[in-house]
Amino acid sequence: MLLEFDSNAAFALGARMHDFDWGIVVTNLDGEVVHRSEIRIPDNAPTSAIATLKKGVEATMASVNRDRLMPAIGLGTPGLVDIHSGIIKSAVDVGWFDVPIRQMAEDALGTQTFVANRSKVGALAELWCVAAAAGIRDLIYISIGTGVASGIIHEGQLYIGANSSAGELGHTTVLPDGPLCPCGNHGCLQQIVSGPAIANRARERLRVTGGSLLTTLAGGHPERLTAQDVFRAASQNDPLALEVIEETASFLAIAVANLINLFNPALIVLGGPVGGADHLLTDMLQELVPRRAMAFPLSAVQIRTSSLGSDAGAIGASVLVLQEASKLLFGDA
Amino acid sequence: MLLEFDSNAAFALGARMHDFDWGIVVTNLDGEVVHRSEIRIPDNAPTSAIATLKKGVEATMASVNRDRLMPAIGLGTPGLVDIHSGIIKSAVDVGWFDVPIRQMAEDALGTQTFVANRSKVGALAELWCVAAAAGIRDLIYISIGTGVASGIIHEGQLYIGANSSAGELGHTTVLPDGPLCPCGNHGCLQQIVSGPAIANRARERLRVTGGSLLTTLAGGHPERLTAQDVFRAASQNDPLALEVIEETASFLAIAVANLINLFNPALIVLGGPVGGADHLLTDMLQELVPRRAMAFPLSAVQIRTSSLGSDAGAIGASVLVLQEASKLLFGDA
Repeated sequence: MLLEFDSNAAFALGARMHDFDWGIVVTNLDGEVVHRSEIRIPDNAPTSAIATLKKGVEATMASVNRDRLMPAIGLGTPGLVDIHSGIIKSAVDVGWFDVPIRQMAEDALGTQTFVANRSKVGALAELWCVAAAAGIRDLIYISIGTGVASGIIHEGQLYIGANSSAGELGHTTVLPDGPLCPCGNHGCLQQIVSGPAIANRARERLRVTGGSLLTTLAGGHPERLTAQDVFRAASQNDPLALEVIEETASFLAIAVANLINLFNPALIVLGGPVGGADHLLTDMLQELVPRRAMAFPLSAVQIRTSSLGSDAGAIGASVLVLQEASKLLFGDA
Repeated sequence: MLLEFDSNAAFALGARMHDFDWGIVVTNLDGEVVHRSEIRIPDNAPTSAIATLKKGVEATMASVNRDRLMPAIGLGTPGLVDIHSGIIKSAVDVGWFDVPIRQMAEDALGTQTFVANRSKVGALAELWCVAAAAGIRDLIYISIGTGVASGIIHEGQLYIGANSSAGELGHTTVLPDGPLCPCGNHGCLQQIVSGPAIANRARERLRVTGGSLLTTLAGGHPERLTAQDVFRAASQNDPLALEVIEETASFLAIAVANLINLFNPALIVLGGPVGGADHLLTDMLQELVPRRAMAFPLSAVQIRTSSLGSDAGAIGASVLVLQEASKLLFGDA
């Protein structure tokens, strides 16, 4: 062998901001995590988020081989991020509007920073760590948690759109007269298949019918029920929980079939705290999606649960750095 | 001026196949039509379509300056076209399956041939003739006629997908329990907003309520009513026709808002025999889409009726040639 590729020749730094914490990883050139840490953000001020990031990055730098660390960081943040200006236009969950996160990070860390939405970089993680090796260059990553969002990869590149807001899957309509969404629309996917929406529907039915395994799981506090509890009960064949998950899957199937008909991807990956936690949703989609998607694009696509777990966002953030390094080394192809 | 660009320095040949005719155009480098003709295809055999194309192209060649004509032709055809192999995988309307249209055309015409779906090339026509001059590189062309399809332009290139079947907008779900579509799905956009669907709904209501301008337009033959008649009556404020068009617009608005949220385009253009015939639909969309689309991607998009009329497909087919020539001259950027 003339030349052997050493995956550990260099490392990249990535950080994913969840509502009130940063997950920070160091990955090798294959996107494998060689170091991970989490650090809590004390409040919702952007300056606090950046100060916390600095603390976390410094702790990380102290515990890895800095010689091989590339001089840059990728950030996966909540909200609508203008990828060109590095400004978070709006992140409703944390109450941020027009926050120049890239500039703030570069000032605090003194290193080049790349920023994108955390679900979009989740798609980059799937591309870099899983799909690319199988020759897949068109994929969609769907993150289901407190909200629903997606990242789209087209011909190996993140699909950005005219003002960096492509991929707002959670706000596509799946039920024209469905529940009102804070975005102003009725019947947004997110209002039916997000974690809180799943838990709410389970709670409602529990109040009406009772007698479910969920009563036990709730321990007298139905307000504490989570989507994860509903999945747990469903996997034990609890009828009420199964009904709620089946309804969830039937609406998710509409959105997934729409994605297949519109984007013709080779791979759709479910991730996020709810979407990536259980294979049940994916199993149901395997049966439901073919009833809605067109046969020809359907024949090109696989639907899978993410294998990256809660690391997906932070890994994807580090891929922002890896992609940039790769462009410098190998050109834009 | 050192160098002046002469739009008429070279010409490109394009042909759009409608169900049983070819529209053939010669365009200059700006995509402006300098010659157009139509020729009827006698039956639905692929060999007949190719023989007719040959006749039409020969007639065209006899009446334009052949010295400046580029030695290639672009075809916009019905159906799912594999853009890499040049094979029509399926075109249900004409009953074609696995027809190697590019090879057949090259054999018959003796010239290099490029093939794509006729709605997809419609998007190329809008890009080349209208949008590019305004700096727009992300647009979606929606063709509404007997069916509903779309062509997606992303960063100045046709969006193809994993097996050339991206853009099947007509088969996205806008009403989960809506009418059954021949594709197997329920509530496909096409079953509600295509020309035949509009005419059918008008007919049904006419039977129940009567007393519409449509009764006059139908002249005692409601079975002859077309979507164009319904638009004509609506533009004269006929209440029944207006109700049908408003319903049509409300479902189209769901699909358009979904496109805006997913693709974040800078421009959406309505074309085709129904979509491009009247500004009424676009006017209604201007009001309905903002109720459903997210504010940020919405702020980046314009919605317009195509100005290219029935030439869009043939012009777009010629753009397949113009783009290829442009790549040879200026590279792939």
